[in-house]
Amino acid sequence: MLEELKKKVYEANMDLPRYGLVTFTWGNVSAIDRETGYFVIKPSGVEYDKLTPEDMVVMDLDGNKVEGRYNPSSDTATHLEIYKAFPEVGGVVHTHSSYATSWAQAGRSIPCYGTTHADYIYGEVPCVRCLTKEEIDEAYEANTGRLIVSEFKRMDKDPMAVPAVLCKNHGPFAWGKDAQDAVHNAVVLEEVAKMAYRAETIQKDIQPAPQELQDKHYYRKHGANAYYGQN
Amino acid sequence: MLEELKKKVYEANMDLPRYGLVTFTWGNVSAIDRETGYFVIKPSGVEYDKLTPEDMVVMDLDGNKVEGRYNPSSDTATHLEIYKAFPEVGGVVHTHSSYATSWAQAGRSIPCYGTTHADYIYGEVPCVRCLTKEEIDEAYEANTGRLIVSEFKRMDKDPMAVPAVLCKNHGPFAWGKDAQDAVHNAVVLEEVAKMAYRAETIQKDIQPAPQELQDKHYYRKHGANAYYGQN
Amino acid sequence: MLEELKKKVYEANMDLPRYGLVTFTWGNVSAIDRETGYFVIKPSGVEYDKLTPEDMVVMDLDGNKVEGRYNPSSDTATHLEIYKAFPEVGGVVHTHSSYATSWAQAGRSIPCYGTTHADYIYGEVPCVRCLTKEEIDEAYEANTGRLIVSEFKRMDKDPMAVPAVLCKNHGPFAWGKDAQDAVHNAVVLEEVAKMAYRAETIQKDIQPAPQELQDKHYYRKHGANAYYGQN
Amino acid sequence: MLEELKKKVYEANMDLPRYGLVTFTWGNVSAIDRETGYFVIKPSGVEYDKLTPEDMVVMDLDGNKVEGRYNPSSDTATHLEIYKAFPEVGGVVHTHSSYATSWAQAGRSIPCYGTTHADYIYGEVPCVRCLTKEEIDEAYEANTGRLIVSEFKRMDKDPMAVPAVLCKNHGPFAWGKDAQDAVHNAVVLEEVAKMAYRAETIQKDIQPAPQELQDKHYYRKHGANAYYGQN
Repeated sequence: MLEELKKKVYEANMDLPRYGLVTFTWGNVSAIDRETGYFVIKPSGVEYDKLTPEDMVVMDLDGNKVEGRYNPSSDTATHLEIYKAFPEVGGVVHTHSSYATSWAQAGRSIPCYGTTHADYIYGEVPCVRCLTKEEIDEAYEANTGRLIVSEFKRMDKDPMAVPAVLCKNHGPFAWGKDAQDAVHNAVVLEEVAKMAYRAETIQKDIQPAPQELQDKHYYRKHGANAYYGQN
Repeated sequence: MLEELKKKVYEANMDLPRYGLVTFTWGNVSAIDRETGYFVIKPSGVEYDKLTPEDMVVMDLDGNKVEGRYNPSSDTATHLEIYKAFPEVGGVVHTHSSYATSWAQAGRSIPCYGTTHADYIYGEVPCVRCLTKEEIDEAYEANTGRLIVSEFKRMDKDPMAVPAVLCKNHGPFAWGKDAQDAVHNAVVLEEVAKMAYRAETIQKDIQPAPQELQDKHYYRKHGANAYYGQN
Repeated sequence: MLEELKKKVYEANMDLPRYGLVTFTWGNVSAIDRETGYFVIKPSGVEYDKLTPEDMVVMDLDGNKVEGRYNPSSDTATHLEIYKAFPEVGGVVHTHSSYATSWAQAGRSIPCYGTTHADYIYGEVPCVRCLTKEEIDEAYEANTGRLIVSEFKRMDKDPMAVPAVLCKNHGPFAWGKDAQDAVHNAVVLEEVAKMAYRAETIQKDIQPAPQELQDKHYYRKHGANAYYGQN
Repeated sequence: MLEELKKKVYEANMDLPRYGLVTFTWGNVSAIDRETGYFVIKPSGVEYDKLTPEDMVVMDLDGNKVEGRYNPSSDTATHLEIYKAFPEVGGVVHTHSSYATSWAQAGRSIPCYGTTHADYIYGEVPCVRCLTKEEIDEAYEANTGRLIVSEFKRMDKDPMAVPAVLCKNHGPFAWGKDAQDAVHNAVVLEEVAKMAYRAETIQKDIQPAPQELQDKHYYRKHGANAYYGQN
């Protein structure tokens, strides 16, 4: 079932080592079929060079395995919460990519210092707090997803305009309209995290890019008046 | 038309990922044919591994598309202003290369800390201010080019001796006598930006290289008394 | 003799340049056969692209060469002390990997700033002191191993839960249940050292990850209640 | 003439891009035949992928070209002074390798922070001052070599024990018993410069490695009592 989606999710997972976003098995991509409500996700702890499209695991939004011989990624419940809360999201990715994870370890949101960031992400990439001991003990992965969702609602952020988040002391999640788009945003996030790291070293009193410049670049590529690309 | 130039511009664009200067489609190279006054530029948002020489777009200096099935790069108007104002410039390149963009995000000009810099660029690489909201709204890309030009004139900089600039909160533009030379200077800029970043970390009280050393290296490679290379 | 183990040790040594952990011959991996009490180790100073499985040297735990035409690694006595004191260790690796060595040169233990670290290493990676002149003169390599062992005992650290150490002004040793697992931990250590370096730059007042988060990630992958992977 | 030496110098030059030490043509290697007193050096400004062994230029120690269709490297006179003053040196290399050049731009000697450094270089890598305007005008490249030599004599440094130097605001020179050994030392220098950069960031109050540890590692690999490797 969902053979086409499995292939796309497989390919998106294989893009992670290709873009230098993962070491060993430290990453996972999923994508959802909104008609059936099933999503397809990488199995847990299987090495990238041994993965095949058939190894992908099919889950429903109640967290039941629908098909697959492997256990799904240990982060499956986080993906699930994001799909449930954000209906426009078609793909989710989690990595421990180096610069983004360093910002997460530092517990800081990534300010928008330039147009590389503003071209894809509207405003800062938020860093959400650690879970409490109670939240961890109760349901660590699900509560990670619920925290991301509740923080986006509290901050009134559109998840399609801010397609990434940092979890404090953990690492990044990114998403998009499908699996490939989610990986694309994970690559952008890593580049943005790297540049922001260096920019702060070069200029101690650095300020975010002016709002009008952020708006110009974001809306040059998104929305009704976009004119970047061939559309 | 301009088939030879299209091929050169295509190859110069393909050098950007080869030299590690671009992620995804974040860069563009153009070159001008001064006889016809037409310039050739990369299409907007087309992936590098799908580009062909025939995809290059031919533009005139009034900003009209002369030939090509694609939209030209969204930064076309910036290239155009540089060609109009600097008659010796034959090629222009824009990237989001990592270190140079970090300096741009920091809003700082890159001082000349050594001979690697002085061999190619006479004095600091200037960082020009952000556009105002009015300038952005009126004509963002054209005004970016106009600002670069007016700042070079105000600072009395020879664009062939300082073949690069940083746009605050955005990134670098570089240029040269043709497309290949422009890319060469973009590579130099990235190396110079990287070394300056590290040198400032190693020595908080760092000063630019002595003027006589800068002069020696610049004029060893440029001008009537040059003796570097085989000419 | 021990042909199968030699092959595994050879392959684990060849993984070091593949993972970017060594320059020239700056690394060595060994593994022990607990039945015979013999361990197999890389020869000293032989280039990686000339190594073969047959070049591996067989040693006993008294430091005698049992088989092999080459001298064993100059760090052999350090490996030996680790095998003697830590009966669960099946493989040992020494590298000068760049970030881990920088922490060793700085003389600092690596705090656990996030789950990438906690997934594999329980608590900080300790940095042990330099040997005294007397310890160096008496038996440098053996005393390096003895210091690691005595420090782990003094700090009451389980070597299988903390499978790595930094030796001040020198570099890292890592270990595991076999040669491949030891190299895996050396890769983890380098990633963790890199992220911690950057995280401290991003946030001057950084604190280690909360203990409950460290526990969650460590025990999600280790021990009776582990649920990461396919077991 | 000197066909064998030309081939070795050619190969040593080609190792520079292979080890990531040069961008474009920013490096040169030479080697001397002490019997004839001739040395062989890379031509000036020729791209690495177009070089052949036959392109190497033969020079005598008075600075005359003995054979070769190209101009020799613009740094030839620096190499020459090193050969004249240090009779044990058989090969010389100059690069703009990124970390070593950053230390040179910062104007700082590289302290010996660990055994990676001490294994190859006895004590700090000195950074010599800029030339004065008079020295530059009179004979820039020759005076660069003379300054290196006079500084090594003033500091009573054995050039075979300290096979590298930084020239302030310029970059590194390294040398060795032949061309290959010189390149080896240039690679070591870059690694050492990188680690020292990071170690200072990790620990603001960092001190050099204890002298007895430096001695142990240096003499484990060099001199009558060396026991590293297969000799």
